[in-house]
Amino acid sequence: MRLRHKPWATDELKKRDHIVIQNPKEMAGKWKSYFGEYDKLHVEVGTGKGKFLTGMGTLHPDVLYVGVEKYQSVLYTAMERVEEAGLENVKLLSEDVADLADYFAPGEVDQFYINFTDPWPKSRHEKRRLTYKSFLSLYESLLVKEGEIHFKTDNQRLFEYSLHSFSLYGLILNNVSLNLHESDIEGNVMTEYEEKFSQKQMRIYRCEAKYRK
Amino acid sequence: MRLRHKPWATDELKKRDHIVIQNPKEMAGKWKSYFGEYDKLHVEVGTGKGKFLTGMGTLHPDVLYVGVEKYQSVLYTAMERVEEAGLENVKLLSEDVADLADYFAPGEVDQFYINFTDPWPKSRHEKRRLTYKSFLSLYESLLVKEGEIHFKTDNQRLFEYSLHSFSLYGLILNNVSLNLHESDIEGNVMTEYEEKFSQKQMRIYRCEAKYRK
Ligand SMILES: C[S@@+](CC[C@H](N)C(=O)[O-])C[C@H]1O[C@@H](n2cnc3c(N)ncnc32)[C@H](O)[C@@H]1O
Ligand SMILES: C[S@@+](CC[C@H](N)C(=O)[O-])C[C@H]1O[C@@H](n2cnc3c(N)ncnc32)[C@H](O)[C@@H]1O
Repeated sequence: MRLRHKPWATDELKKRDHIVIQNPKEMAGKWKSYFGEYDKLHVEVGTGKGKFLTGMGTLHPDVLYVGVEKYQSVLYTAMERVEEAGLENVKLLSEDVADLADYFAPGEVDQFYINFTDPWPKSRHEKRRLTYKSFLSLYESLLVKEGEIHFKTDNQRLFEYSLHSFSLYGLILNNVSLNLHESDIEGNVMTEYEEKFSQKQMRIYRCEAKYRK
Repeated sequence: MRLRHKPWATDELKKRDHIVIQNPKEMAGKWKSYFGEYDKLHVEVGTGKGKFLTGMGTLHPDVLYVGVEKYQSVLYTAMERVEEAGLENVKLLSEDVADLADYFAPGEVDQFYINFTDPWPKSRHEKRRLTYKSFLSLYESLLVKEGEIHFKTDNQRLFEYSLHSFSLYGLILNNVSLNLHESDIEGNVMTEYEEKFSQKQMRIYRCEAKYRK
């Protein structure tokens, strides 16, 4: 992801506090009721420029989507997308995924999305991968019982690693697809990275990982 | 697999009873000591023409290998291969995998191999797949604690299904490879099918699935 420094981004994001939530700690436990009457809360970690989340938000108005992205310069584009689409049900957090337990209550999240997350190929960086066991445990603490992670990536090594990590944690793998765009899955919404890599004829890998009761 | 009828195969196999074991029920619990002093017993299900098992037997003389194949016309070629290579540590069973519990004692097997097994693509045939839960339970009953299944296939759908089935059963996936021949795995021994499919530039999928304590 290109990280041009955008010093004005911080101020602009603050002005859009109906989209980029400024006091997320106070929202813990209240997300679904605060913004209306949502049945479901889905959280995307490492949202990037927000293409996936605005696509999903448009398709599923009954779901409240929250995107978490630590770089403001990137989040700025996501904010613009949400604004342009006029979506009430997509919110953004300018925060680090590692701190999620401060912003959501146990059992509050119905589903996590991890899309094209940084692969951190060196084994000494394993702990930074968003599918490492400490993150799986963090997601579990915030998810409903039998909650799910929906995971997509173009990175073969990261997918191989994540299958290992998910299974070691005891998660159940469902709807595994080793070539998403050649499969018969319906309703797929592409992310920025997905569009870029699939134009280069690269395979996209996907799976759903479900926590046990 | 081409199944030319070879009526003489039955007789010929019987004559080689030092390779094709004729009284496997009596061998249960005795495999490793009966043929010498083997440390390990590895069983391949659906051996076909025996290329993999003769390769492995040559590389690892300290391991006793048993190949199970239900079609005698195919097993005949495997028998010839073992005979030509003069391998003492490779034995064959002309039996159905479903009956394995008659031929091995609980905890006797150190590892299972499943190579390019029939995919049975229709969901009504799920129960016939050698990675279906009833087979996973059968293997578990015969394996040592924390025993492993080593699985290879060219069939993307079967691999996707098997990842699901393994994880649902609670197995831990290790050394997952989504493109075996482009990976840095060492000591890979090719099967007949593997050779055929990799010549056609098809991807080979592989993983190890380990039972929990
Ligand atoms: C490779 S990009 C993919 C973006 C988008 N999901 C897509 O598929 O196009 C990964 C994004 O995750 C963000 N990210 C990585 N680790 C993060 C963390 N711990 N907390 C918040 N964001 C993170 C990065 O800043 C980057 O924008
Ligand atoms: C597609 S071939 C693969 C052969 C070999 N493993 C290879 O990789 O080249 C599958 C083999 O498994 C055998 N097989 C399938 N189901 C079996 C069963 N239930 N019991 C014994 N053999 C079986 C078939 O007869 C066939 O020879």
